[in-house]
Amino acid sequence: MTLASPLATRVLSGDRRALARAISAVEDRLPGAAELMATVYRRAGRAHLTGITGPPGVGKSTLVHALISGHRGRGMTVGALCIDPSSTISQGALLGDRVRMGGFHEDEGVYIRSMATRGTLGGLARAAGAAVILMDAADLDEVLVETVGVGQSELNIRNAVDLVVLVLMPGSGDSVQLLKAGVMEIPDIIVVNKRDRAGAAELAADLRRTPPSGAGGAAPRPRIILTDALSGDGVAELGDAISEVRGHRTEQGGVGAQRADTAAAVLELALEQVREQLAGIVEDGQAAALLDAVSARRTDPGSAAHALLEQCFGPDGARMATAS
Amino acid sequence: MTLASPLATRVLSGDRRALARAISAVEDRLPGAAELMATVYRRAGRAHLTGITGPPGVGKSTLVHALISGHRGRGMTVGALCIDPSSTISQGALLGDRVRMGGFHEDEGVYIRSMATRGTLGGLARAAGAAVILMDAADLDEVLVETVGVGQSELNIRNAVDLVVLVLMPGSGDSVQLLKAGVMEIPDIIVVNKRDRAGAAELAADLRRTPPSGAGGAAPRPRIILTDALSGDGVAELGDAISEVRGHRTEQGGVGAQRADTAAAVLELALEQVREQLAGIVEDGQAAALLDAVSARRTDPGSAAHALLEQCFGPDGARMATAS
Repeated sequence: MTLASPLATRVLSGDRRALARAISAVEDRLPGAAELMATVYRRAGRAHLTGITGPPGVGKSTLVHALISGHRGRGMTVGALCIDPSSTISQGALLGDRVRMGGFHEDEGVYIRSMATRGTLGGLARAAGAAVILMDAADLDEVLVETVGVGQSELNIRNAVDLVVLVLMPGSGDSVQLLKAGVMEIPDIIVVNKRDRAGAAELAADLRRTPPSGAGGAAPRPRIILTDALSGDGVAELGDAISEVRGHRTEQGGVGAQRADTAAAVLELALEQVREQLAGIVEDGQAAALLDAVSARRTDPGSAAHALLEQCFGPDGARMATAS
Repeated sequence: MTLASPLATRVLSGDRRALARAISAVEDRLPGAAELMATVYRRAGRAHLTGITGPPGVGKSTLVHALISGHRGRGMTVGALCIDPSSTISQGALLGDRVRMGGFHEDEGVYIRSMATRGTLGGLARAAGAAVILMDAADLDEVLVETVGVGQSELNIRNAVDLVVLVLMPGSGDSVQLLKAGVMEIPDIIVVNKRDRAGAAELAADLRRTPPSGAGGAAPRPRIILTDALSGDGVAELGDAISEVRGHRTEQGGVGAQRADTAAAVLELALEQVREQLAGIVEDGQAAALLDAVSARRTDPGSAAHALLEQCFGPDGARMATAS
């Protein structure tokens, strides 16, 4: 009953300043943040959550901008979370107090938030997942999450969203190779942006030939959409494709699939908590003697890892954690 | 004193079959594997450890092949570990008993091992790190580790090697963008392979203009080497560059830098142990009721993560882990 209860009520009523304060509370791990999340989560689950991912420079921010405009045109309220350190949205947020994104800062129906990586990626997935839940609970209809990512990325927010749109452009050969090799998880939709550039049609054709199974087994073949986010060409078609995939997903969504997603999300969240705690021990210098012993080869990394877990969880906890 | 002691002695004497058995013991978490690692680690630390990373299709396997030939030509013994699921080396290993890699299977001075990802990435970093230590302890002069990776990858073995070579080719636009955006860690050396293809010189020039600081702060500007791994062009120059970087690293290598590397390695290893344990609990269905409660929004993911940590570490351990 610290800050959680009244703040939760204000978030749930759609108060944008309360939403901003709640996200900051989670980012900064303020007392009461966990209680706040427990309270709002029961009321979340109504928003459409879409991840927009891809390498830097392909035009993700412009596409997010165009999607926001489209949603607003249909009278939907929109939240956008940007956790891509290379994004123009993030850079805008870092440069000034107000996110100046095509005038949306004067639109009460749009809430834009960017999340700085603070040089390290620790805790980012946790904070981003919580921010998505808060936006959802704050009565926003559509939530877009922009992340940078190619292959397995620590900025992966797949578990926090309903579906993932991968944005590529002519020249995205590495991403195509990762998809073909089955190293990269198959997204629900692949956008070939900058469709007027040389090679766009070839890229789309190449992607259509790519086998539909990604890392971790069979996946449905992704929809391929060509866009020019700057002029808006193809963005309406993308919006329709997102709606169709979501509709199909809702029809098909058995309990099993949902539980797998939930399991992955909870597992990552638990690991993130452990990571923050272990990193704290290391950064505080509490493990210095241990690390020196590894460097001097008096102990091996595996034994040192066990000792570090003992420092964090106590002897019983570490024994439970490492017993096979 | 299970299998560890006699097997360790045989590994340290350079017995290749013992080395293979030891790596399998670690991969399969056999009893005694931790003791084995503790024993051999004291005797490791003599080998040169080089990571070869990059997206699929750029020619990493061919380059590893060429580097092995070069090392053999100078009378060095060589170990190669391939943990790239898209690699032709891995595929060879999966298709048959014998790794057929240009005739090296008849050369006693070469030990090649590939590590399957088994559909999931859990435990791979741990097993790969241990395999590198075992090869080092087994009296191999040079150890090459081939991994797929773009940006932050779970296949990252940076902490297990002395230096990292990133291999790109014309068309690797996504990787260049990740480097420029500071999202990707800066490697020590960047190889532009397939140097005869259109765009190779432009790619090298573009990389030379890329700012030298990567994610996590300033890094020295990487050396750029153009190669054609298939014909061998530029491979000798790459070998020289690797030696120079390693020599420079050894001169500069203060205790501080070494401790940071060790800390990262131990931290990742500890997290890997926790990940395996938590994943086991989830896969065994022990957390099913908890996950159903999240799906039904009776509890939130953060509370569920805490409950999962309690299941793993006991109430005291979980409290220690999540106290701020």
